[in-house]
Amino acid sequence: MNDQPLTPDAILDATEAALRRFGPTKTSVTDVARALKVSHGALYRHFDGKAELIDAVVARWLERLAGPLAVIAAENGPAPERLRRWFDVLIASQSAKAKNDSDLFQAYAGLARANRSIVAAEMERRATHIAKIIDDGAKQGAFAAIDPGGAARAILDATVKFHHPLHADEWSRPEASLNFDAVFRLLLRGLAQ
Amino acid sequence: MNDQPLTPDAILDATEAALRRFGPTKTSVTDVARALKVSHGALYRHFDGKAELIDAVVARWLERLAGPLAVIAAENGPAPERLRRWFDVLIASQSAKAKNDSDLFQAYAGLARANRSIVAAEMERRATHIAKIIDDGAKQGAFAAIDPGGAARAILDATVKFHHPLHADEWSRPEASLNFDAVFRLLLRGLAQ
Repeated sequence: MNDQPLTPDAILDATEAALRRFGPTKTSVTDVARALKVSHGALYRHFDGKAELIDAVVARWLERLAGPLAVIAAENGPAPERLRRWFDVLIASQSAKAKNDSDLFQAYAGLARANRSIVAAEMERRATHIAKIIDDGAKQGAFAAIDPGGAARAILDATVKFHHPLHADEWSRPEASLNFDAVFRLLLRGLAQ
Repeated sequence: MNDQPLTPDAILDATEAALRRFGPTKTSVTDVARALKVSHGALYRHFDGKAELIDAVVARWLERLAGPLAVIAAENGPAPERLRRWFDVLIASQSAKAKNDSDLFQAYAGLARANRSIVAAEMERRATHIAKIIDDGAKQGAFAAIDPGGAARAILDATVKFHHPLHADEWSRPEASLNFDAVFRLLLRGLAQ
C-alpha cells in the first residue's frame, strides 16, 4: 500500500492515466486502485464507482476550461469582440483536447450522449457567460435589448456544430473555421440593435 | 424464382422491409435476395453490394422528403414565412421518420456519420433551396443583399441541432420546438436588412 495521502486530485490523475491506457470503455475502478496502490475500499470512500470517477475527471477538465472563459465573460470591453474571443477559446480548447487527449475527450462525449448532469451543468455555466456578455452589449448599445438568457441559449444552440462533442470529427476539416465565422457573423447581425 | 420483373423500386422496398426486420447492421444482400425470391447475381446486376443498397434506400427517402421542400423553395410568397415553413416541413418529416421508421432513419444517420456522398449531395440540395429563398427575400427587400449561397450554408450550419441525425435523440424533448423558434428568430434578424 502507498503511504501518500489519497487526495481527490491524485485519484483523478490516476483515472486520467487509466483512461489513456485502457480507453473509456475498458477502464475499471480496479485499474485505478491498482495504479494508486490502494484497495478498492479506499477508493470507494471518495467515489461511488466508475461512473462517478469519469464524471469527476471530466468535471475537472471542464472546470479548467471554464477558467479563461469566465475571465472573458467578466471583462468590460466591447461585447461583440468578447463574444467572438469566448468562442475562439472554447473551440480551440475543445479541438486541442479532441486531438491530443482523445480518451478523456471521448469520455466527455460519452457523458454528453448519455445526457449526464455534469454536462448539463456545464452548458448552464456557458449560457451564463454568454448572457453576461450579451447584457453588457445591450448596455453598450451594440446589441438589442433582448432577453440575455434566452439569447445566450439560442446562440449556444446555433453553434453546436462547432462545440458539441458529437461533431468533433468535423472540427479538423479545412472549412471548419470559415464555416464558424459565417455563422458567428450572422448571429452577431441578429443580436445587433 | 419470382416471375415479377425485378425493378429498382421492388428491390428498395425489399431492402426497407429487411432493414425493419434485421436493422441496418445485420441486414445482408442475401436477406434482400431471399425476400425477392431471386438470386444474388440478379440483385448484383442492379446494385454493387450492401452499401449501395442502403445508399439507394436512403436516397429514395431523401428524394421523397425533398419534394415538398423544393415546392416551398420555388414559391413566390414572402421569404421569411417560406423559410420558416421550409424548416418546419424538414423538421417534422425527419422527426416522424426517426420516431416511426427508426431503422431506415438509423441507416440515414449511419451514412451521415460515415460522410457518404449521398448525404453530402442532400445537404447541397438543401443549401440550394435556402439560397433561392434568401435571394427572393433580398429582391423583396426583406433580407439584406448578402451572398445567398454563403448565407444558406450558415443557416444550415446554425440549425444542425434541429435537423442533423446526430441530434435525433433531442428532437422529442418538450423544449425542442421552443429552442428552434429562438434560433430561427435570431437568424431571421441576422438576415434582415
